[in-house]
Amino acid sequence: MVKTQAGSRFVGGADYAALNEHSVRDFLSPLPVAASLIGGEPSVWTVREVGDGNLNLVFIVKGTKGGVVVKQALPYVRMVGESWPLPLDRAYFEHEALKIQTLAAPNLVPKIFHFDTMQAAIVMELLEPHLILRKGLIKGLRYPKLAEDMAAFCAQTLFRTSDLGSPASEKRERQARFSHNITLSKITEDLVFTDPYRVSDMNRWTTPQLDKVAAAIRDDAPLKLAAQELKWMFLTRGEALLHGDLHTGSIMATIGDTRVIDPEFAVYGPMGFDLGAFMANLLLAYFAQAGHASKEDDRVAYRGWILDTLEAFWLGFETRFLALWQQGGAGDAFLPALFADDVGGVAMDAYRAMVMTQMFHDAVGFTGAKMTRRILGLAHVEDLESIVDPDQRAACEKRALRMARTLMVGRKAIPSIHALREMAEALVMEHIA
Amino acid sequence: MVKTQAGSRFVGGADYAALNEHSVRDFLSPLPVAASLIGGEPSVWTVREVGDGNLNLVFIVKGTKGGVVVKQALPYVRMVGESWPLPLDRAYFEHEALKIQTLAAPNLVPKIFHFDTMQAAIVMELLEPHLILRKGLIKGLRYPKLAEDMAAFCAQTLFRTSDLGSPASEKRERQARFSHNITLSKITEDLVFTDPYRVSDMNRWTTPQLDKVAAAIRDDAPLKLAAQELKWMFLTRGEALLHGDLHTGSIMATIGDTRVIDPEFAVYGPMGFDLGAFMANLLLAYFAQAGHASKEDDRVAYRGWILDTLEAFWLGFETRFLALWQQGGAGDAFLPALFADDVGGVAMDAYRAMVMTQMFHDAVGFTGAKMTRRILGLAHVEDLESIVDPDQRAACEKRALRMARTLMVGRKAIPSIHALREMAEALVMEHIA
Repeated sequence: MVKTQAGSRFVGGADYAALNEHSVRDFLSPLPVAASLIGGEPSVWTVREVGDGNLNLVFIVKGTKGGVVVKQALPYVRMVGESWPLPLDRAYFEHEALKIQTLAAPNLVPKIFHFDTMQAAIVMELLEPHLILRKGLIKGLRYPKLAEDMAAFCAQTLFRTSDLGSPASEKRERQARFSHNITLSKITEDLVFTDPYRVSDMNRWTTPQLDKVAAAIRDDAPLKLAAQELKWMFLTRGEALLHGDLHTGSIMATIGDTRVIDPEFAVYGPMGFDLGAFMANLLLAYFAQAGHASKEDDRVAYRGWILDTLEAFWLGFETRFLALWQQGGAGDAFLPALFADDVGGVAMDAYRAMVMTQMFHDAVGFTGAKMTRRILGLAHVEDLESIVDPDQRAACEKRALRMARTLMVGRKAIPSIHALREMAEALVMEHIA
Repeated sequence: MVKTQAGSRFVGGADYAALNEHSVRDFLSPLPVAASLIGGEPSVWTVREVGDGNLNLVFIVKGTKGGVVVKQALPYVRMVGESWPLPLDRAYFEHEALKIQTLAAPNLVPKIFHFDTMQAAIVMELLEPHLILRKGLIKGLRYPKLAEDMAAFCAQTLFRTSDLGSPASEKRERQARFSHNITLSKITEDLVFTDPYRVSDMNRWTTPQLDKVAAAIRDDAPLKLAAQELKWMFLTRGEALLHGDLHTGSIMATIGDTRVIDPEFAVYGPMGFDLGAFMANLLLAYFAQAGHASKEDDRVAYRGWILDTLEAFWLGFETRFLALWQQGGAGDAFLPALFADDVGGVAMDAYRAMVMTQMFHDAVGFTGAKMTRRILGLAHVEDLESIVDPDQRAACEKRALRMARTLMVGRKAIPSIHALREMAEALVMEHIA
């Protein structure tokens, strides 16, 4: 029996049981998708458990017609074990967020077929031949539509759920709902904004190479202040419904298709948080490239492509978000009728540009926080972890940490995404020179 | 039968009926307070309905021992009528907020004796010989403890419910609850931040004296932008549980005692909103003094006392809020352990000072918005309404509107509460000279 956290939706219960490669067949067989999408008798289906994330079970079930994915929440953190319990209601929040994202960005999330409250399980589209983006970036694959698709995903989901895109009545109700996603939000609050900056059993880093760097960061008052200021922003600024964990492991892609998965950390927060999460993980991929270079491919052109993507992402986001705002949303903030005359229009355009600049600075700060936590905190990224030589890995990590500090402490001094790109280039050039 | 809004707590129901001077006896007689606090047979009690607010019924019930107050929500806006329905669950939010304020500032709110969900009614302490502060300010009464008490109320309630004073788990749950106070929040959103800046049937002003001023404000793009920016802050920045309607009509006072009542608009929002509400209403009282001058009392010294109170309020708030923060709260933002060394301590002190400056600028902006809406919007203040001569009233109102505009558009350029005081003085001096 699994209890859910107080105050949030009831998910799981006496009949909850972690699915396995056998029981998932019984779970699926009564559902319409069994006939329409999988096909054939359950006994002939192939089932693979592929969850490589930190928290859940993920089954790929295939039959004669095709297949589906079943994602089930476990009552504890998978990567740590039963000693770290985690409420099953995160499956509820993931499903709710997916429904909202489906409305805002229909072609950029997986299709949802079924949600089972008792088993805390979501049945969704099997994305094939999609690869987790992070793995593609490690392999050196290029995704020509990635920047544009992620710009569209962020602009459309953030705008639509904000007070620019939703009436206050709808937004307040939605914010109330997701405010109950307390335990997963707390993981973000601790692991992203606090633990990397203090002694914590859960931290780890490339040792001994980064020992001194990690110690210096624990003594770096301006950096800790920046981290806690970003945490306060995360806690207080309910600007839009965030995906909440928008790293490159939460994106599945082919050359021509991009899908965002796993929004179980969804909560209202500052828009810059999602933007920064994606930007941080592109930058981590960039700084890791030196560790993936080979005689055949020095990865120089490829790391340039990653920065092209970073730049195109931000510029695409800005353009799309501004366009949505100029078209006028259903929100209660900045009612278009108040600024319908020429003077109002000019004033409003100037104001929108200022808001985008502020959002950029927010995103830059969160980018730095998300980079730091992946090097000094609990959860690392395969981009860096897969670099076998610890000296080489540490060298990449040190460059990333230097950049991250500048982004966090000096975020308001960074004038543009191009300047940010040049900073990343200079850090790698410096090393080569 | 009265339905409540979707998503919020169930209040009212089939048996709900507006109380009257007879039925309130039946309502009270089964309660313990009937014997312990009122005393005597219900038939000998005296009952007076004294609700002079805009929304509710308020009964004073007295017996042989003493008395109580019964406040009951009506299913419509009292000042407008049944054509403007209003959910009864606001009584739930008021009661919830009163419980939280009682913990944070126990001697500055009325004691609560009973909450009746079905009747949407709160039984609370009868405050005698307290007077509504606004009426005292019109009479020219001085309250030597007012600044200090209101500074304490704001510092303690805002700090305690913020991410400095409450763990995130508790704060997110509380924010979720109050996010359902959607209808009353919408009244604030519309009446404070939008209606005064557009043509609306619900607006009124001293006419024809202010017709041109009102029209100019509807064409004032920078001012409308400032108003909508403040609205966006109100919608997004969940910094603390606000009282939500902290004007001088929500305060009952004697020379030695101050109590804050009527928190039915409670919602998470920017701390500056409550601070600005109180400051705005002091300034409206100040600008109205010329209209209350008589041969016996030119009110010059008294209006100086109002500004002394304004200044002492802000400085007292700042001192108390900083002291609470320095002591260290139970919140998840700016964990004290991260800044425990000397360098961290100095950095944190500098940061706290910067936060107080930002909060001041927020408060200044909300002060301006709250002043404007009381002159051009639906709900006016007795301070100005009681000035019989419309020319004199309009002259006071114009000075207040001029100040309000500067506070909204130029809030970040106002360096201190003393500078704000001097601005108010100069506006009155200018008129005399």
